[in-house]
Amino acid sequence: MTKTWIFTSKPAILSAGISAGPFEKESPFAQYFDYFSDDLYDEEKSFEKAQRSLIEKSIKVTLEKGLTAESDVDALLMGDLINQLTPSGFAARQFDIPYLGLFSACATSMQGLALSAALIDGGYCEKVLTGASSHNAAVEKQFRYPTEYGGQKPPTAQWTVTGAGVVLVGKEAGRGALAYIEKATIGRVRDINVSDPFNMGAAMSLAAADVIERHFNQSGDTVEDYDYIITGDLAEIGHGITMDILNERGVCIPEEKFLDCGRMIYGDRPEVLAGASGPACSALMIYGHFLNELKAGHIKRILSVATGALLSPLSFQQKETIPCIAHAVAITGERGGVS
Amino acid sequence: MTKTWIFTSKPAILSAGISAGPFEKESPFAQYFDYFSDDLYDEEKSFEKAQRSLIEKSIKVTLEKGLTAESDVDALLMGDLINQLTPSGFAARQFDIPYLGLFSACATSMQGLALSAALIDGGYCEKVLTGASSHNAAVEKQFRYPTEYGGQKPPTAQWTVTGAGVVLVGKEAGRGALAYIEKATIGRVRDINVSDPFNMGAAMSLAAADVIERHFNQSGDTVEDYDYIITGDLAEIGHGITMDILNERGVCIPEEKFLDCGRMIYGDRPEVLAGASGPACSALMIYGHFLNELKAGHIKRILSVATGALLSPLSFQQKETIPCIAHAVAITGERGGVS
Repeated sequence: MTKTWIFTSKPAILSAGISAGPFEKESPFAQYFDYFSDDLYDEEKSFEKAQRSLIEKSIKVTLEKGLTAESDVDALLMGDLINQLTPSGFAARQFDIPYLGLFSACATSMQGLALSAALIDGGYCEKVLTGASSHNAAVEKQFRYPTEYGGQKPPTAQWTVTGAGVVLVGKEAGRGALAYIEKATIGRVRDINVSDPFNMGAAMSLAAADVIERHFNQSGDTVEDYDYIITGDLAEIGHGITMDILNERGVCIPEEKFLDCGRMIYGDRPEVLAGASGPACSALMIYGHFLNELKAGHIKRILSVATGALLSPLSFQQKETIPCIAHAVAITGERGGVS
Repeated sequence: MTKTWIFTSKPAILSAGISAGPFEKESPFAQYFDYFSDDLYDEEKSFEKAQRSLIEKSIKVTLEKGLTAESDVDALLMGDLINQLTPSGFAARQFDIPYLGLFSACATSMQGLALSAALIDGGYCEKVLTGASSHNAAVEKQFRYPTEYGGQKPPTAQWTVTGAGVVLVGKEAGRGALAYIEKATIGRVRDINVSDPFNMGAAMSLAAADVIERHFNQSGDTVEDYDYIITGDLAEIGHGITMDILNERGVCIPEEKFLDCGRMIYGDRPEVLAGASGPACSALMIYGHFLNELKAGHIKRILSVATGALLSPLSFQQKETIPCIAHAVAITGERGGVS
C-alpha cells in the first residue's frame, strides 16, 4: 500500500499572494485577492505574458507579506497549463531563486504544496515559494477555441480562472503564520473513460474519489477530523459524480462538509456554466479564502484536494480518453493540533 | 545564499531501465540500453504514443531488474518535452503508482533524481521511480518542422534522442545497488539572450555554468572530488561556451574531466551536427553508461548536470529569448565514500 506523507514538523504557510483578472474581481471572495488586472492583458502584449505578469506580482506580494527577501528563498515550485509551462518558466527568469517546474494540470497547486512541505520538513530548504496559475483566454485558445470566436459551449463546460496564487512555506511559525501543513496523499492517474474536453469535471471525478479514499485509508484520519474536504475544480457535474463514487465505496462525507472551489469562486453567475476550473481555481480559493478562515480560527482543519485533467490538444486529436489526477493536502490552523 | 541539498542517508539507485529507438541502437553506448524499437513508431499509431510505449517499457524493465513489485513503489516522478507532458501522463495511467509530473525540459532527469532522493532521504517514500524521455520526430514536429519536410539545419542544431531512461531509487542498498545519491543543487533560470531554437547549446550554457559554480561554492566540494562533471546536452557549441564562462569565473575544470552526454551518445556521426539533445540524452547516458561505470568501480563520483531550455513554440513566435535551467546531482559508487 502506498503511504501518505506525514510532515512531523508541520511546515508553516507564512504568507500568500494572489493576483487575478477583472472577472475574478466580482467574485464573492475577491476581498482575499491582492491585485486585479484591469483587463486580460495586464499591460502585456499577449495573454500568456499577462499570465506571467500575474505570477510575478503574486510572488512579489507573497515575499512582501512574508517579510522575506528573494535571496532567502531556497526554491520556487510552480506550474500551469500552457505548453512547456511558458508563463511559469518565464516568471522564474525574473527571480534568482532555484526553480522546479511542476505539472499536474489543475492539481498543480497541491503538488507544489506537498513537495514544498517535504523539502522544508526534510531539512533541504528553509523557505520555499510555490504557486499555480491560469488565464482564461490563454487556455481557451490552446485547448479549445479562441474566445473571440464566441463559440457556444455545452452546460458541462467550465470557466477557467484568470489568476495566480502563491504561498511562502517555511520552518518557523513566527510572524503569525496562516496555517500549517500536516500530511499529503499523492494521487494516481485515473481514467473514467471520458473524452469530451467540455466535460472535465466528470473526467476528474474518479481521480478525486480515489485520492480521498486513499487518504482516509492510509492516514488513519476520518472525515470527522476535517471541517471541510474541498476539491479543486470538479464543478457541478464532477462534484456530484465524485460524491456518488465515494458513497458507493463507503466513504460518506456529509454534503455540507464537501465543498468544491469550482462551485464557489464565481458565486451564482450563470455564464460560468458548470463552474470554474484552471490551476488558479484551487490556488485562489485555498490560498486566499480558506487560509484566512484557518488563521481566523473559524475552522480548524481542511483537506484540500486539487484536481487535474492530463489531456492535451494532441491527445484529443489522437482520440484518447482523459487521464486525470488529484492530490490531497491536510492543512490545519493549529500547529499543536491533532495529527 | 541558496543551499545544496544533502542526502545524509545516500539513497540508492537500485536499478535502471532504458528503451531507445533504432538510431540509438548504433550508439557506442548501446550495450547499456535494454530495449530498442524497430522504428520510430514502436508498433503505435503516432510518435507521441511510441514515446509513451518506450516509457512504459523502461518502467517495467526497471521494476524487473530491481525485483520490485509495482505495488511497492510509492511515487513515479516523470517528465518530457511534449505539450502537457502527454507521453509521461499517459504512461503513468498504466500504473497504480502515485504520480508527480515534472518539467525542466532536458534537465528533467536530474530534477527527478534530486526530488526522488529527497523523498527517500526525508522518509516520505520507501521506493520511487523517476525518469525522463524524448522522441526525435515528436519533438521536431512540435518545436521546429516535421522531419518528413527534410528541411536543412544549421551546424549549431542538435539531434533529439529517442528513448526513455528510468531508475528505481530506494533506502536499502541491498541487491547490489548501482550507485548512491549524495547531494543536489537546483538550478536558477538563466537567459544568455539567445533566441534561435537551432542553437540550444549556446542558450543553455549560462544556466549550466551557474549551477556548476553554485554547486562548488555551496557544497564545499571541489573539482578534485569528482572523476567527471557531465553536462546533459550542451553539445559542441554550448559545452565550449560553458567552459569559457566557468574559466572566467575561476572555476577550472580540466578538459578531460568535463564531459557532455550530447557530445558522447552518438560517437562521431556527422548527421547529428553539434550533438545530441532531449531529456532522454542525459537519462540514457547517466542511467545507462555512467551508473554502470560507478558500479564497476571504474570511477568513484560524478556530478551530473542535466541542462534544459524552457522555450516553447509560443515563446518563439512571441519573439522571446530562451530562458534555461540546469540541475546538478552528485552520484557516488560507494555509500561509505567521502561526502
